[in-house]
Amino acid sequence: VRLTIRAEEAPINPGIDKENPKVVHTADVSTQTTAQAVYCRCWRSKKFPLCDGSHVAFNKATGDNVGPLLVKK
Amino acid sequence: VRLTIRAEEAPINPGIDKENPKVVHTADVSTQTTAQAVYCRCWRSKKFPLCDGSHVAFNKATGDNVGPLLVKK
Ligand code: FES
Ligand code: FES
Repeated sequence: VRLTIRAEEAPINPGIDKENPKVVHTADVSTQTTAQAVYCRCWRSKKFPLCDGSHVAFNKATGDNVGPLLVKK
Repeated sequence: VRLTIRAEEAPINPGIDKENPKVVHTADVSTQTTAQAVYCRCWRSKKFPLCDGSHVAFNKATGDNVGPLLVKK
């Protein structure tokens, strides 16, 4: 007997603002104090919507290749 | 006999730039022609790094609640 288990599409956000039906943020560059700001796209940052580097451990654990969006003035 | 199958952490990017070990983009607001640009955080957009609305079908299919980052000049 061979059991094949195929992954279905699954949620990618494990914990951010889960009561909100759609998590949208705005990066308002007019109030951005640094030349560049780094925004998370892995949904694992403790500083979400900003990147805190958590994508590194996530990629290592899963074999993924995700990274942030830099917002440059 | 009861089999319990627990999901491990899994990749969240199914297909974007998979040869690249870390997918990073820059939103350069100095060349942004619109007051607002919409950037994808669900990794399903056909216009990545921009959002094309694919998060709607993804959330519906998976029960997730992800959405884009708006970059406002
Ligand atoms: S912590 Fe999520 S992209 Fe860096
Ligand atoms: S298509 Fe990915 S967030 Fe909209």
